[in-house]
Amino acid sequence: MLHQQKLRFSTTKRGTYNITQQITEAIGTSGVKDGICHLFIQHTSASLILCENADKTVRSDLDTYMEKLVKDGDSAYQHNDEGPDDMAAHIRTVLTQSSLSIPVHKGRCDLGIWQGIFLWEHRTNAHQRNIALTIMGE
Amino acid sequence: MLHQQKLRFSTTKRGTYNITQQITEAIGTSGVKDGICHLFIQHTSASLILCENADKTVRSDLDTYMEKLVKDGDSAYQHNDEGPDDMAAHIRTVLTQSSLSIPVHKGRCDLGIWQGIFLWEHRTNAHQRNIALTIMGE
Amino acid sequence: MLHQQKLRFSTTKRGTYNITQQITEAIGTSGVKDGICHLFIQHTSASLILCENADKTVRSDLDTYMEKLVKDGDSAYQHNDEGPDDMAAHIRTVLTQSSLSIPVHKGRCDLGIWQGIFLWEHRTNAHQRNIALTIMGE
Repeated sequence: MLHQQKLRFSTTKRGTYNITQQITEAIGTSGVKDGICHLFIQHTSASLILCENADKTVRSDLDTYMEKLVKDGDSAYQHNDEGPDDMAAHIRTVLTQSSLSIPVHKGRCDLGIWQGIFLWEHRTNAHQRNIALTIMGE
Repeated sequence: MLHQQKLRFSTTKRGTYNITQQITEAIGTSGVKDGICHLFIQHTSASLILCENADKTVRSDLDTYMEKLVKDGDSAYQHNDEGPDDMAAHIRTVLTQSSLSIPVHKGRCDLGIWQGIFLWEHRTNAHQRNIALTIMGE
Repeated sequence: MLHQQKLRFSTTKRGTYNITQQITEAIGTSGVKDGICHLFIQHTSASLILCENADKTVRSDLDTYMEKLVKDGDSAYQHNDEGPDDMAAHIRTVLTQSSLSIPVHKGRCDLGIWQGIFLWEHRTNAHQRNIALTIMGE
């Protein structure tokens, strides 16, 4: 049993966006009871992460940390056609995930109690982001 | 053919724990000969990695490196309810992996000769950690 | 429907190697129309990434960044049997990916328009690298 669809998200600025509900709904409509839900973001300047879903300061701290780990506008970058956040966004993507695989069990997205699924926009301005979703199982 | 089960591990403190044998055994009992073994840790302060499995200093060096890369108790963190290792553990998890997919070939876990599978506990005290395992194939 | 094969790549030195075409070809020969293509590198000192595939400076900047993030020959490393790049290569692998899962849709590798698949050699000298490929679907 296999289900594929595209999900489209609009981001407004750099930061994390909770997409857990859209994934949960897609699993529900797929009809797959047990298997794997695979998410793949079709971009090189935004990524996917699993993160604590209760306290919002976790994600603001994550943003703060990443701003320091990967400097925007570093003079060492040659690739800066689209501004100081351009190369930083590519590096941030490589250090996190372009795809996530999540178990589906008894028709549900089998996350841990504190886990949420987030799209991380690494560009500072708004973008349209596509995620290719594949659910396989029984 | 699909096999799902939960694996539970007790950690005693921050560090890496070799779980290769438990995964190998689960593949053996699943009956799947060729396919994929998917591991998913249901937590946001512990992660999964593939790492060199011969010389223990690789993993102690990895611990040393990560202590410097992600400082415990950084004054920039707002999220520190559970102590100085709380937010650091979430960041370490995001920079490594919450899930691993490993090929199954001829009934065996098809790792490279030096590879092992490790649970990385990022909290400084003991925890119970659950991994959802899904094996799909023929 | 399941297809498995080993791919072998020769690297000449540290850096990124575009393997998109080999993966695309393997998908074509597998006969799978819709599903997942899973790549798994059987080594602990080379990794796999998805990265921007148009402007080569993205990948040279990525190399520059990683050289600073993970220092070769750091005096803190105990594991240095094979030289100053030995432990650094293990850390770089852990911070990036040992496996990638990519959607297959209508017989094609469903990458975003700017995405390419790269093997990242983290050792400074030449190596033979094996990737176990598994394609599952319909």
